[in-house]
Amino acid sequence: MDGLQLRTLAKDDGTLELSLERVPVPEPKDDEVVIRVDATPINPSDIGLLFGAADMSKATVTGSGESIKVTAPVPENLRRAMAPRLGQSLPAGNEGAGEVVKAGANAKHLLGKIVAAFGGAMYAQYRTVRAADALEMPPGATAADGASCFVNPLTALGMTGTMRLENHTALVHTAAASNLGQMLVKICKADSVPLVNVVRSDAQAKLLRDIGAVHVVDSSKPSFMDDLIAAVTDTGATLGFDAIGGGRIAGQILTAMEVAAARKGGGAFNRYGSSTHKQVYIYGGLDTGPTELNRAFGMAWGLGGWLLPLYMAKIGPAEVDKMRQRVAREIKTTFASHYTKTVSLADMLKPEVIALYNRRATNEKVLVNPNA
Amino acid sequence: MDGLQLRTLAKDDGTLELSLERVPVPEPKDDEVVIRVDATPINPSDIGLLFGAADMSKATVTGSGESIKVTAPVPENLRRAMAPRLGQSLPAGNEGAGEVVKAGANAKHLLGKIVAAFGGAMYAQYRTVRAADALEMPPGATAADGASCFVNPLTALGMTGTMRLENHTALVHTAAASNLGQMLVKICKADSVPLVNVVRSDAQAKLLRDIGAVHVVDSSKPSFMDDLIAAVTDTGATLGFDAIGGGRIAGQILTAMEVAAARKGGGAFNRYGSSTHKQVYIYGGLDTGPTELNRAFGMAWGLGGWLLPLYMAKIGPAEVDKMRQRVAREIKTTFASHYTKTVSLADMLKPEVIALYNRRATNEKVLVNPNA
Repeated sequence: MDGLQLRTLAKDDGTLELSLERVPVPEPKDDEVVIRVDATPINPSDIGLLFGAADMSKATVTGSGESIKVTAPVPENLRRAMAPRLGQSLPAGNEGAGEVVKAGANAKHLLGKIVAAFGGAMYAQYRTVRAADALEMPPGATAADGASCFVNPLTALGMTGTMRLENHTALVHTAAASNLGQMLVKICKADSVPLVNVVRSDAQAKLLRDIGAVHVVDSSKPSFMDDLIAAVTDTGATLGFDAIGGGRIAGQILTAMEVAAARKGGGAFNRYGSSTHKQVYIYGGLDTGPTELNRAFGMAWGLGGWLLPLYMAKIGPAEVDKMRQRVAREIKTTFASHYTKTVSLADMLKPEVIALYNRRATNEKVLVNPNA
Repeated sequence: MDGLQLRTLAKDDGTLELSLERVPVPEPKDDEVVIRVDATPINPSDIGLLFGAADMSKATVTGSGESIKVTAPVPENLRRAMAPRLGQSLPAGNEGAGEVVKAGANAKHLLGKIVAAFGGAMYAQYRTVRAADALEMPPGATAADGASCFVNPLTALGMTGTMRLENHTALVHTAAASNLGQMLVKICKADSVPLVNVVRSDAQAKLLRDIGAVHVVDSSKPSFMDDLIAAVTDTGATLGFDAIGGGRIAGQILTAMEVAAARKGGGAFNRYGSSTHKQVYIYGGLDTGPTELNRAFGMAWGLGGWLLPLYMAKIGPAEVDKMRQRVAREIKTTFASHYTKTVSLADMLKPEVIALYNRRATNEKVLVNPNA
């Protein structure tokens, strides 16, 4: 048994090459299953691995169907960052779902079931995984329903989890109209966590209010900083999660939190700022440019990277399993995802499709069906 | 009994005014003492309170001696940051030392002793403090010896303390040729902590090597990044303390740590970077410009503010007292400070003296003797 698998390869000549390879599908061991991958999303976190630092606007295509091959140049000054993966033909695709078509001796109960899995190499027709890593979908859920079971749902749950772990009581979230952002709105509503949603348009603001968001501020408005300060003051948020990364937004959130803390402190002047710890985690890089901080937020602040696997390692498998089970239970409600387009593996490498998902637009998302 | 006290006042008209006021000296309560302040240093952390956002290059002076008055404009766009202190005539001076000239009933044993104190308003001829806050100097130590007992020594000790608390094993330090940096070199040598010193000239490098520094890298050299990576690899440093704040240095330290971690990881490609947590704390602002991060250091990183009083609150009074006692014991060795110039309170407000200490040059430091 074999199947197509997408590969991404950084070459010595300074180009990146994407192709489809026909690879053997490993037979399942006793505790494993083979999933026929019928639905796998393209997340911003996949795009980093797919394209690395290559300039996809300069990509050229040869062949078609199974033999399609895309080549794009990596700008000279960004090649150093690609060095660790040079010459390695890498599979990609963080997560996906489909029917179990083969099962090892101890996993026969999963045969024919729709399961979701997380662990890379999902841009492929078949994927062999440990049965323990296959999350069974509830009756009635399709592969498309289950495709995005992990990255967004667990990240959103990880945000409220981090909030509790680090003794905060409310959150700020940027790029809040994303699929993930919509899940976070629903989680926070269900769990009574005050949430400040930062969006970039009236349409995004309406979308979030329609699903129950209370605090929505628009960074494209001249009143943005005042609106943010008001919302942070109302909610008492001292923790933010930023999907943007580049530019001034992380610093603006810290500044708003500091102004809110100073007001709460009664206005007495403290030369080093408030003693309230203010934290922002950058968990995405929609803007890959530099992060700029003016440090106008006292001394009690932190900025850091936040990565789902590191968070899961910190809380341990029992807590992770609780998160997974909640996702499975609520896959058609809280954790429902919306896609703009469904494409095949070969379509995924067409320049016009690449241009679509490489925009990483907040509310545009592509689903891949490798067996289409 | 009264004495002169320096005051700094941000006025409604957009100017900052510095002056000397003659103020009554509070009689000591049972648990208090009055110190005749004979030596108090001008630290970078004092300058922020002294001048706020005022443009001191445009300062004008009226009067002389006790009636000297300095007025400087606050640029329009920086006035918002000064709003919380508008109209408040504030004393300044974080620390200092001198002879106990009056003592309450329970503090008579300190009469005539040289003590050091921390707690603001030390740019004054007399200062009444709690006896518990007066750190008695060992025999033979002068007020000048004890003047800088707190800010630099406790900050330097706080760096190695933070290192242990957060499970790091080596440090990177910027502006490393400062008085504080020299203390840190001696502490790390005594306590066997590997330390990477970042300096900005050959002279600074020599100064540190002469007192026993092993790893010294010069950020003014073209080979800086390579040198930093080599030193971070050698020491295994995953924690940095940055006195500069603005610019790219904090990010460069994180980048060097990430390269070192990736090498240690054996070179296997990890798309999200190493899982080694890399941390830099900004504890000063020698460069008040924005901090710029290119985020080329994976996802396991943190940047934050570090402030001595917050650190002391975290570790609690018993640990703080251990630090204080170590400082007193080693005040003439590990914690010895060097001053370029000693001035009076009135001299401190002369434009040419302001120009000297407002440069915040790494190895130039002014001591004030309010009773000169």
